[in-house]
Amino acid sequence: MKLSEWGELALIEEIKRRVSYSSDVLIGIGDDTAQIDVSANKSLLITTDTFSENIHFTTGLFTAYQIGYKLVASNVSDIYSMAARPCYLLLNMTVPGELDKDFMLEFLDGINRAIKQYGLQLIGGDVTSADKAMTFTATLIGIPQNRVIRRDGAQVGDGIYLSGPTGEAACGHELLKRLSMPVKVESDELPDLPLKRDSMLRVLKRFLLPDIEPVKDAHNIHSMIDVSDGLFIDLRRLCDASGVGAILYERDIPVSDAIKEVAGFLQIDPYRLITSGGEDYVLLFTAPKGLNGYYQIGEIIDEPSVKIERTDGSIENIGYEGYEHFVHKG
Amino acid sequence: MKLSEWGELALIEEIKRRVSYSSDVLIGIGDDTAQIDVSANKSLLITTDTFSENIHFTTGLFTAYQIGYKLVASNVSDIYSMAARPCYLLLNMTVPGELDKDFMLEFLDGINRAIKQYGLQLIGGDVTSADKAMTFTATLIGIPQNRVIRRDGAQVGDGIYLSGPTGEAACGHELLKRLSMPVKVESDELPDLPLKRDSMLRVLKRFLLPDIEPVKDAHNIHSMIDVSDGLFIDLRRLCDASGVGAILYERDIPVSDAIKEVAGFLQIDPYRLITSGGEDYVLLFTAPKGLNGYYQIGEIIDEPSVKIERTDGSIENIGYEGYEHFVHKG
Repeated sequence: MKLSEWGELALIEEIKRRVSYSSDVLIGIGDDTAQIDVSANKSLLITTDTFSENIHFTTGLFTAYQIGYKLVASNVSDIYSMAARPCYLLLNMTVPGELDKDFMLEFLDGINRAIKQYGLQLIGGDVTSADKAMTFTATLIGIPQNRVIRRDGAQVGDGIYLSGPTGEAACGHELLKRLSMPVKVESDELPDLPLKRDSMLRVLKRFLLPDIEPVKDAHNIHSMIDVSDGLFIDLRRLCDASGVGAILYERDIPVSDAIKEVAGFLQIDPYRLITSGGEDYVLLFTAPKGLNGYYQIGEIIDEPSVKIERTDGSIENIGYEGYEHFVHKG
Repeated sequence: MKLSEWGELALIEEIKRRVSYSSDVLIGIGDDTAQIDVSANKSLLITTDTFSENIHFTTGLFTAYQIGYKLVASNVSDIYSMAARPCYLLLNMTVPGELDKDFMLEFLDGINRAIKQYGLQLIGGDVTSADKAMTFTATLIGIPQNRVIRRDGAQVGDGIYLSGPTGEAACGHELLKRLSMPVKVESDELPDLPLKRDSMLRVLKRFLLPDIEPVKDAHNIHSMIDVSDGLFIDLRRLCDASGVGAILYERDIPVSDAIKEVAGFLQIDPYRLITSGGEDYVLLFTAPKGLNGYYQIGEIIDEPSVKIERTDGSIENIGYEGYEHFVHKG
């Protein structure tokens, strides 16, 4: 059987089945980060992400600067989703010898921007040659601030919140694919299209150079995950880990002016982008109802299903639509 | 300019030039591991290694089991070189969807063997699809036992020691290349060649499934590095970091019976394998002279050169012969 038939999730289940932990591993495989107990009052969080060429990025759509920045930002998002502070970065670069030195320097500039923006320190890594495609891995160590917030703490009756609108990144990706060339948003370059400058900048930046934001006050939050594979699949993960169900209300899910305008121009229905587009790097969390400053999009319910009430009043079950490696290539 | 002209070492220097550390980073880029200060009496060590297909391994010479085991073992060697205990493992796998599921399971079996042998816990990682070649990254976190031993502590007058003979791994690699097929040493399979079974097993295991051993007592050791790129280049790194020179005595450098026999059969001069073969994963360290239980192969001297006294009494300077990515492909 090929991996493309077996699937990424089956492989991860196989790996989970093989591991067992002693008490110093506070969180193992299965959350946004691992957590290890270091001493009486100190623990650390660790997360790692790999970007591979032609899967996570192509040089036809990304500048080297954007690849470097986004690699680090995706890890920062995982640390923020535990309500922790990102600190120490390791960087593994597997690149072919034919690669241009300037590409590498621009990639490092992107890494450096993320290091400065999020207050990180680059403490190590590995440089190796690649036979063909580039592969980059970033590993990030974070320090808990107060309580670490896991994805398995959702409680029946909680409101479900988003820290920002979803779908803009996927919309930016669609726009880029239509353009078929990189756009240097880091230098404020934008394509010449009949669209508002702000809308283009917004969706392209969400995809290429996303600003990752922590929640301001994690005090009342019961569970949290970052939306990286898509709102629906990441909500399902949170619900599965917590052993609860959920209902979303379509009318409450934010649809930004930028996505309306750009998706309209591209003649795409924004619904799929918003619910299953992925790479949003916003936070999805649950907390008692009535929290201000975030989008409340649904509630945690005492039944096993995860569903959405559409604007026409109909109810649909939410499956596992989202990005799975090997199985679909996005 | 291409990376193949610029070189791996120039790239690493460029990265080093860009970093600066606050006081919580006890060791940054430039040693076998990084070290971060976590609380009053606790620090952690972190190291990471990437293996990429057709550079570090080929499926034509390695079984999946061997690739998995060796990836972890190479990181264990880095933690041992700091006199620390390896603990927490992260695993990033970038593999094409066309890969066979059984290959993946066998790879995980090799990972599991290393996990058991070295007492590790797999706490996280990432699974992504590859466009073409496989890339694997392992990141390992270790806990210092007593004092952390760095590569920059060598003192003039120290003896230079090896924890085991070098060159056997490179000799095993040469033998494998001659065979042009994987050998399942994990199942005690050996090729049918006019060589002692023990000699073949020894050099093939050193290359494919190396047992990584810590030093028994790090009390008197002033500086240490693991020999991964070759005895000469790793000695130069230790000397450069410590700001000292060294003289090796060829007559004292161990030449195992296994390497004599197999190199003889292959009609290769073992000297290059022993001094510059690489992937030895033995420890090179300096300590006061007269230490028992290790091979004393030279001494640290108060001059900038690093040299070797050959068996004929001639003196040769030691350059930077060893594996550099992009520049030569090994």
